[in-house]
Amino acid sequence: METTRGFLVGRFQPFHSGHRQLVADIAGEVDELVIGIGSADASHTVHNPFTAGERLVMISKVLTDVDLQTYVVPLEDIDRNAVWVSHVESMCPPFDVVYSNNPLVIRLFNEADYEVRDSAMIDRDRLRGTLIREDIVDGESWTDRVPPAVVETIEEIDGVARLRRIADSDAHED
Amino acid sequence: METTRGFLVGRFQPFHSGHRQLVADIAGEVDELVIGIGSADASHTVHNPFTAGERLVMISKVLTDVDLQTYVVPLEDIDRNAVWVSHVESMCPPFDVVYSNNPLVIRLFNEADYEVRDSAMIDRDRLRGTLIREDIVDGESWTDRVPPAVVETIEEIDGVARLRRIADSDAHED
Amino acid sequence: METTRGFLVGRFQPFHSGHRQLVADIAGEVDELVIGIGSADASHTVHNPFTAGERLVMISKVLTDVDLQTYVVPLEDIDRNAVWVSHVESMCPPFDVVYSNNPLVIRLFNEADYEVRDSAMIDRDRLRGTLIREDIVDGESWTDRVPPAVVETIEEIDGVARLRRIADSDAHED
Amino acid sequence: METTRGFLVGRFQPFHSGHRQLVADIAGEVDELVIGIGSADASHTVHNPFTAGERLVMISKVLTDVDLQTYVVPLEDIDRNAVWVSHVESMCPPFDVVYSNNPLVIRLFNEADYEVRDSAMIDRDRLRGTLIREDIVDGESWTDRVPPAVVETIEEIDGVARLRRIADSDAHED
Amino acid sequence: METTRGFLVGRFQPFHSGHRQLVADIAGEVDELVIGIGSADASHTVHNPFTAGERLVMISKVLTDVDLQTYVVPLEDIDRNAVWVSHVESMCPPFDVVYSNNPLVIRLFNEADYEVRDSAMIDRDRLRGTLIREDIVDGESWTDRVPPAVVETIEEIDGVARLRRIADSDAHED
Amino acid sequence: METTRGFLVGRFQPFHSGHRQLVADIAGEVDELVIGIGSADASHTVHNPFTAGERLVMISKVLTDVDLQTYVVPLEDIDRNAVWVSHVESMCPPFDVVYSNNPLVIRLFNEADYEVRDSAMIDRDRLRGTLIREDIVDGESWTDRVPPAVVETIEEIDGVARLRRIADSDAHED
Repeated sequence: METTRGFLVGRFQPFHSGHRQLVADIAGEVDELVIGIGSADASHTVHNPFTAGERLVMISKVLTDVDLQTYVVPLEDIDRNAVWVSHVESMCPPFDVVYSNNPLVIRLFNEADYEVRDSAMIDRDRLRGTLIREDIVDGESWTDRVPPAVVETIEEIDGVARLRRIADSDAHED
Repeated sequence: METTRGFLVGRFQPFHSGHRQLVADIAGEVDELVIGIGSADASHTVHNPFTAGERLVMISKVLTDVDLQTYVVPLEDIDRNAVWVSHVESMCPPFDVVYSNNPLVIRLFNEADYEVRDSAMIDRDRLRGTLIREDIVDGESWTDRVPPAVVETIEEIDGVARLRRIADSDAHED
Repeated sequence: METTRGFLVGRFQPFHSGHRQLVADIAGEVDELVIGIGSADASHTVHNPFTAGERLVMISKVLTDVDLQTYVVPLEDIDRNAVWVSHVESMCPPFDVVYSNNPLVIRLFNEADYEVRDSAMIDRDRLRGTLIREDIVDGESWTDRVPPAVVETIEEIDGVARLRRIADSDAHED
Repeated sequence: METTRGFLVGRFQPFHSGHRQLVADIAGEVDELVIGIGSADASHTVHNPFTAGERLVMISKVLTDVDLQTYVVPLEDIDRNAVWVSHVESMCPPFDVVYSNNPLVIRLFNEADYEVRDSAMIDRDRLRGTLIREDIVDGESWTDRVPPAVVETIEEIDGVARLRRIADSDAHED
Repeated sequence: METTRGFLVGRFQPFHSGHRQLVADIAGEVDELVIGIGSADASHTVHNPFTAGERLVMISKVLTDVDLQTYVVPLEDIDRNAVWVSHVESMCPPFDVVYSNNPLVIRLFNEADYEVRDSAMIDRDRLRGTLIREDIVDGESWTDRVPPAVVETIEEIDGVARLRRIADSDAHED
Repeated sequence: METTRGFLVGRFQPFHSGHRQLVADIAGEVDELVIGIGSADASHTVHNPFTAGERLVMISKVLTDVDLQTYVVPLEDIDRNAVWVSHVESMCPPFDVVYSNNPLVIRLFNEADYEVRDSAMIDRDRLRGTLIREDIVDGESWTDRVPPAVVETIEEIDGVARLRRIADSDAHED
């Protein structure tokens, strides 16, 4: 029997419990999963605070207890939508089915004749990268919405201080 | 007598009836016209839904019945205004006069000592790329504002579905 | 009946009589032809002396007497073979068959499931870009190996002097 | 005794009296100062109207009467925060202490173990690049907020007309 | 006790038995190993025939029977040696010691104050990427010099035909 | 009376006594001189061992005793000859006359209608970057062919060891 390999792409800023659940769900459908870390070249911004390496550590730690062969691949932005699917294909092991809820990603893979499955995530009122980053900046509670290994990684890199510093743009303009 | 060659640049997302009329007007002033397709490397965004190749097809089809020698040249963005005119010059046949209503384009060619003629377009309440793209997304009527060959091209590439899909950013954030 | 559109890519440094003959041959097989000007961003080197705009002028002038609908499209290098076919597709009207004798081009289009036809050129002892450029630099005869419109274009841009100057690298090292 | 060299980075659009005062203050703390012109590749936008060369002229003229050895270095954007400090280090003479009030710059140099001193600027209600550019566009008075040599440079390059032209985006959309 | 993490970078075109042995040797010295796939954006050339994704598959398959936690990370070229170490750091989990026999890599990590250990490979008369690629092109035996999983991967992607085709540059010049 | 400003561009790997003499000669012809450091983004290669910052230090130290207002400007490569002059113009103060013995530089500035004066350097059998770099690698004498401040800078950055290390490519191929 053939191996079925899935592809899931996200920025994972940070990898939160919704992502964790999604991978667990996908594990029931595929034999192997390629996880693409999008915008891998971005970091130290409010929208993309963590480097690809930091995100790779988060994901690897979290997935140690998921029973699924995974490949975690940083994907630098190529800023040209028309070649993005080819870019992904050249960086990753070949895959059969794409998981995404991003309209652009869905459209690009559809135009390239891939099967795309909707990757609806749970609890979107709480589990959303934007909300979690805002709550980190604002000093609200957030650690209950990401896996423990993610809290640990963010602490090791002093990530809360980083996010708060770069979010403070009041004095920025020269 | 010398040939006079004009240069007209736009993103043409899509090429609409205002562009068609403008080219017809310019045809009375020059012998040949270079049409630069700006942001040629952009596609699959709400602002730039169509690839350069798709736009090239639209323009070529529409201009078959215009009595003017034209050169249609995709121009990738170079993201550095100070060298943009040189970039255009290197990609196009040489031209004598520039047609534009874009303030930046006008300024850059003025600083490079080109003659720039105002390319006022007709019927700007209806014939404007932004409005037409919005109406495509919203399901409003739009086909009466672009030449028939453009409607045809957009249908062939399933362009309406593309625009609607990528405009749906609700589920986007991870 | 469907239109068949071919794709021919080359650097055309310069467009010579072998290219001219090849297009004439292809004209018997397709209804329309997309001619991609490769390395469009290169110029002013011994290997790539002419800009894309200058090459576009050469080709357009030569093809006025070929009875074939052509699209001449400058293609900037993207320096990443794995996405090059997607890059070409995004810049050009869609095409059905590729003409090339370049092993890399053949391989890349084969891997993308295109039909590739061998585009054997005539008289390869004389009609070869490298030889013609060398003869221009060395002051040998060359004008009988390119169409008259190409001689004319090279004269208009003072191309012989350009090639000789940049070929003189003796004093180059600082 | 060791030479202490400081590093100050800004976009200097334009170099105003607050920058002039800041350099004078720093002159009391260091022996030499590297002044990095950020976003050196940007120009002809409302946010970055002046080229790096134009800004270099402004700064050089203003600093002729400051008793401090300075190095003025254009720094092109590298669009990847994680390597930006290395980029700066490769383009500049080595430095011991960084002056900045930009949160991102402060954070990046902190993570690279540099000493960063706060470079609070005076009179921020009046002396701020954004405000000065807006007042130039709006025809308000502005020449009393930049050193005379900056007024002179902006006049020489017809900078007021440039800013007003590119700020006029009404007719922009095609 | 602290985890020690090593970093090994190569182009792995292809991953051969010398690489396999090297990883086994390193496994005795570190707890975890980051394997960087250099020139990840290159493919389809004689020097770099395989995509990063294809190399990632080779390496992952081979390392399934090595008792070592590994992270395999594609690293696109950044073409600027002075920022390359920062680039690597941003893409990878943090590491303590670098394994390399590449003089440039050794020098760059030395200048960044990393410990670099010599990664002498065995049997360099036979186990060398260049030699193996040449023998593939020339039809010589090569399958005994790479792990079985690499032979299998190259067969799956029709890699021998690819290498031979792109090595045939006789007809290349236009 | 108008100020005359010259422009001299080189890679200065390293800045040697021939460059020093050339600047002294030019000092008799112009009021100010812009010195462009070419390939500013290159370093740590045999051809370009020193960073732009290191070269800037060399040049600044050497020129302290030349009675000429100079501007030293790192110029990153733009890899597109047709826009290179515009790139230089955007990064530098405006200049009236170009000094170069590089055929490509001469041609590009000629096509842009600049006056170019030949910058013949003295003693080319000894004073040539390539020769000096080779002699550094080979352990031959070289310090008598560069100004003392350059010897000093190269020592401070451990430049001899860097050059020798990166020149040792024997073990390089993986």
